[in-house]
Amino acid sequence: MQTASVGIIGASGYSGLELTRLLARHPKVQLRFLTSDRWVGQEVSKHARVSSTLRYVSVADGLAQAAQCDSVLLATPAESSLELGPKLRALGTRVVDLAGSFRLKDRAQYPKFYRFEHSAAAQLEEAVYGIPELFRAQTTGRPFIANAGCFATVAALTLAPLLRAGLIDPDSVVINAGSGVSGAGRKATEAYGFMEIDGDFRAYRVLSHQHTPELDQTLTAVAGEPVSVVFTPHLLPIKRGILCTSVARLKPGIDPARVAAAFVEQFGQEPLIDVLPDPHDVRITEVVNTPRCALGAATDGKHVVSVGAIDNLLKGAASQAVQNLNLQLGFSETEGLR
Amino acid sequence: MQTASVGIIGASGYSGLELTRLLARHPKVQLRFLTSDRWVGQEVSKHARVSSTLRYVSVADGLAQAAQCDSVLLATPAESSLELGPKLRALGTRVVDLAGSFRLKDRAQYPKFYRFEHSAAAQLEEAVYGIPELFRAQTTGRPFIANAGCFATVAALTLAPLLRAGLIDPDSVVINAGSGVSGAGRKATEAYGFMEIDGDFRAYRVLSHQHTPELDQTLTAVAGEPVSVVFTPHLLPIKRGILCTSVARLKPGIDPARVAAAFVEQFGQEPLIDVLPDPHDVRITEVVNTPRCALGAATDGKHVVSVGAIDNLLKGAASQAVQNLNLQLGFSETEGLR
Amino acid sequence: MQTASVGIIGASGYSGLELTRLLARHPKVQLRFLTSDRWVGQEVSKHARVSSTLRYVSVADGLAQAAQCDSVLLATPAESSLELGPKLRALGTRVVDLAGSFRLKDRAQYPKFYRFEHSAAAQLEEAVYGIPELFRAQTTGRPFIANAGCFATVAALTLAPLLRAGLIDPDSVVINAGSGVSGAGRKATEAYGFMEIDGDFRAYRVLSHQHTPELDQTLTAVAGEPVSVVFTPHLLPIKRGILCTSVARLKPGIDPARVAAAFVEQFGQEPLIDVLPDPHDVRITEVVNTPRCALGAATDGKHVVSVGAIDNLLKGAASQAVQNLNLQLGFSETEGLR
Amino acid sequence: MQTASVGIIGASGYSGLELTRLLARHPKVQLRFLTSDRWVGQEVSKHARVSSTLRYVSVADGLAQAAQCDSVLLATPAESSLELGPKLRALGTRVVDLAGSFRLKDRAQYPKFYRFEHSAAAQLEEAVYGIPELFRAQTTGRPFIANAGCFATVAALTLAPLLRAGLIDPDSVVINAGSGVSGAGRKATEAYGFMEIDGDFRAYRVLSHQHTPELDQTLTAVAGEPVSVVFTPHLLPIKRGILCTSVARLKPGIDPARVAAAFVEQFGQEPLIDVLPDPHDVRITEVVNTPRCALGAATDGKHVVSVGAIDNLLKGAASQAVQNLNLQLGFSETEGLR
Repeated sequence: MQTASVGIIGASGYSGLELTRLLARHPKVQLRFLTSDRWVGQEVSKHARVSSTLRYVSVADGLAQAAQCDSVLLATPAESSLELGPKLRALGTRVVDLAGSFRLKDRAQYPKFYRFEHSAAAQLEEAVYGIPELFRAQTTGRPFIANAGCFATVAALTLAPLLRAGLIDPDSVVINAGSGVSGAGRKATEAYGFMEIDGDFRAYRVLSHQHTPELDQTLTAVAGEPVSVVFTPHLLPIKRGILCTSVARLKPGIDPARVAAAFVEQFGQEPLIDVLPDPHDVRITEVVNTPRCALGAATDGKHVVSVGAIDNLLKGAASQAVQNLNLQLGFSETEGLR
Repeated sequence: MQTASVGIIGASGYSGLELTRLLARHPKVQLRFLTSDRWVGQEVSKHARVSSTLRYVSVADGLAQAAQCDSVLLATPAESSLELGPKLRALGTRVVDLAGSFRLKDRAQYPKFYRFEHSAAAQLEEAVYGIPELFRAQTTGRPFIANAGCFATVAALTLAPLLRAGLIDPDSVVINAGSGVSGAGRKATEAYGFMEIDGDFRAYRVLSHQHTPELDQTLTAVAGEPVSVVFTPHLLPIKRGILCTSVARLKPGIDPARVAAAFVEQFGQEPLIDVLPDPHDVRITEVVNTPRCALGAATDGKHVVSVGAIDNLLKGAASQAVQNLNLQLGFSETEGLR
Repeated sequence: MQTASVGIIGASGYSGLELTRLLARHPKVQLRFLTSDRWVGQEVSKHARVSSTLRYVSVADGLAQAAQCDSVLLATPAESSLELGPKLRALGTRVVDLAGSFRLKDRAQYPKFYRFEHSAAAQLEEAVYGIPELFRAQTTGRPFIANAGCFATVAALTLAPLLRAGLIDPDSVVINAGSGVSGAGRKATEAYGFMEIDGDFRAYRVLSHQHTPELDQTLTAVAGEPVSVVFTPHLLPIKRGILCTSVARLKPGIDPARVAAAFVEQFGQEPLIDVLPDPHDVRITEVVNTPRCALGAATDGKHVVSVGAIDNLLKGAASQAVQNLNLQLGFSETEGLR
Repeated sequence: MQTASVGIIGASGYSGLELTRLLARHPKVQLRFLTSDRWVGQEVSKHARVSSTLRYVSVADGLAQAAQCDSVLLATPAESSLELGPKLRALGTRVVDLAGSFRLKDRAQYPKFYRFEHSAAAQLEEAVYGIPELFRAQTTGRPFIANAGCFATVAALTLAPLLRAGLIDPDSVVINAGSGVSGAGRKATEAYGFMEIDGDFRAYRVLSHQHTPELDQTLTAVAGEPVSVVFTPHLLPIKRGILCTSVARLKPGIDPARVAAAFVEQFGQEPLIDVLPDPHDVRITEVVNTPRCALGAATDGKHVVSVGAIDNLLKGAASQAVQNLNLQLGFSETEGLR
């Protein structure tokens, strides 16, 4: 494929806006339509501040053009992508889904973690889970990619080298993370008002966040043995970015020097991952507004503390979706991201 | 004792200022002297914004009045309190030490965690460790109390009920905490400048923070068996407050309902602890500017996540020191705090 | 009057909560009822974190008890206080109104600035405007006091000494102010979300804010000649506090030394005003959580720049209402505030 | 000139880093050297996060290469640029100076506003003042351009259309502005610590800021008659951006509709200025990280309130310097900025 025609459904959320900006500048992509309920008829250039002659359309009008697209990206709530995924595939269009409705292979978990019964078994089977640095072999050329969740992305990257190399006890993993407010999406509730957020920090969805089964599934695939994590997300008084601190027990008899080596071996050549020598250098401000993930781990010979940081709207959503789109369509993985 | 005469050494740090405000209003305490290197000769009322006719004096001038004091509180760097503690005890004065130099009973740990050899063996033996809600029986009436560290206080409170009741595996404890910038003290370095802190979040002293051995010592005493924790502190873009998220494995066969019950049993009647039904209600903004600790725990039958919040300058320093001072001098423990 | 029985209508807004805290500790006041639509039936102690056995009631239930009150304070939207003021006066109850509906003497201005026709002419005539430091002689013992607006309070205090002493051109006054987000009240709109406010600063209600005619009326009374100001409020990314910068032309031939002298003469003995020697020392963080106003002015011989700061919820609302209540009932003006 | 060889002296300050990023991507510019005292020998790519093989050098090493440069940009303190400007001109190199030492034509003002005697009369005479939207005719092709100050840039743009069209009284101009902390440069003082800045807002250099004479000089040139402003800068608790609110009296008999028209006429075609219909739409967050200036004005028929916003490090420093460099070297003015 020389260039691709692409649509975005759900282009006015925070992730959808970032996706618009990235794809508007992508040298191989031609944006064909963008849907937004709140901005139907308004100029894309005004809201996304990109050079474009497009105007936002309704979802129905977007779907009407989808068959002419090489791929459509879904940046909608999960309930919507659950409906749109099958419709788009029926039109023969490829899909990259940024919502969560096609990430968990076990349908039984959707009622608990997403509060719906999963109604699209065929597409769920077709969908492949997309974190390119871990699964690019499986996603290249595939028609339906489920873009990984923000917390799940960074947490998986802090742990994958340790699990692949068999350095840590898969039953000992405790993950804590703090996210900026944009992770909650564009909701006008008092809970996300400045008066509530500024000066505060708190845990949420304790022992019940939907990225916990996503991480178990991902890390089990990476480790080749069952992994079950405890994950606690927290809300930070900042706009963007996630810092994730993963703790695990080193297996008995493991040489501590293998910890740092595992990260260099696995990710040292990755174009979008910075393996730092010290976890103290991993900071949100160093990755915000970039498609990169910073990683750094330390060990005292008994435990490993592995720290990672990403921009939740980019590597945690839009820029990772561009990586996955590039893999799907056969472009260079970092096309449009460097 | 009807009323006590009290001095503060190190009254211009953030904790020292809070201590000044609390003691200036304490109905049973008469402030006799306050030392401050930066403000010698200046009015206490101006800097601490309290009603007082005192002026700050040098440490030497403070020591000259110490023998007339019923107790002296040390809010200095640890290196200073290591020297001042023995001097004050030689004068026969009681001590409440807010620095860390008398918290760890094992002298061998000071070089690693405090970067000095401990030179005051007698006072270290005399000192008792002060978190009133856990150890008030041991601290009442004692002449030398080592006030607990900020992280150590809140982390110990999130875990003590679980360990005392034997509900969690003592080898599985992972603690993560975020602290406001005042925890770093009044340092004019670029690292704590607004440009570095705003919008950021990062881990520090990974696997090497001095509150780790303090927690091991405290929780081992509470549990009656060896406890060894992994503790990772983080720096929050806020001024004040700590939120601590402790994770541990529930012992096999434990009824999950015992988790909530343990907190109510142990702390339900504590005047300065709020046991909340849900960890999501534990928030920094609810405890900042109060002497209180908020606690809330949840379990899924396999793990417990226990969340606590305090004001690092109050329950994490100054107001806990007032609790300990009250115990030392025989006053009601919450005198001056309600 | 030895002690007074007092009610609060609108006790769950930010100002209402501060008022509750102040009056719960006021040595001469007994709170009889507090109304809150959102918290009817819930404990006052829980939301306001004060010692109280009261529960919030509906406005109707509050009015049923109003005749037994010595005074009722209104912390409602302006439309509500416009209705409640006459009802309370018909019951013979005194009123302190924190809303704006009785501040402007000229009824013709309400449609433009408050978007309603003023329907309560008798009470508007009865009402006296309350900034104690400027008008305590007029408000003492009066049954209906219109508590001044937040911006109007601090701006009037930055200018009154200059106008009273005839030092500045009354036609040259330009006022700019920045306010924390709590000034907008408890609104769950996207405009006051963390994502919109953090990192931003902007002007609002340019040339149309309702405190402009309030300031013209106040400063004209103070100056004894017509004063017409240009006032531009701005929204700050902070929770609480207002800083106001007033600029005016010095009248020809005025000795510049008279500027500082005017502030000392007028306010040097005021218990709640800090006249600072330098406008650079006037800072929001020095007055937040206090009932005080800080003022500092400078001149270059041609213009005066006068800077003031208050807590918008205290001196800009609740604590000033307590001053006015004290004056109304014959208590010492700062009772309950020191 | 096809492409230019350019050096930067003072590349590790906040403005210097932005300049590095802009020029590293500038299609017509080849960076030849960058000096930094703190980072001598370190890689430019690491600190500025740009693609570059250069390492920072000392000022002496930079000067040794300056004769081979088409232009050198100075992002140093004013005292340094005062010395470096003449040295560079003696080598025959063109200069764009981001410091303030060549902005004021009246040498008598330097001791008061910059605290030095101006020692470089020839270069001061040669230097032309650079705000391209006001003075591009005068700066095109000139060898020494004094890049305008951050506050002076945005304030001048809020007022120039009004003064050029003769709509406002030149003696009535009052300017207030708030700036993010980066405006103070990279100083590790307690005054710019997070603990001092967060939650605060205050005025500084009242009636004495060095941009006041710069504005008087600029606006007098624009108006063709003497203009003398009152300017009060304030410090905002944000990292980047300036919002400026300028107030002036409309001349008698002026049709209010001419206010909006004047902005459209003067700046409607400017590629880097957004003339907005409403001053409420002018917000710092809309211009941060862009080279743009947003402007919006309102009038009530008596006064004009004109609001402007820029990124202090871009349009207030680095990106405006690139505009001026482009003019100096004959490139398209927005080359490297769109």
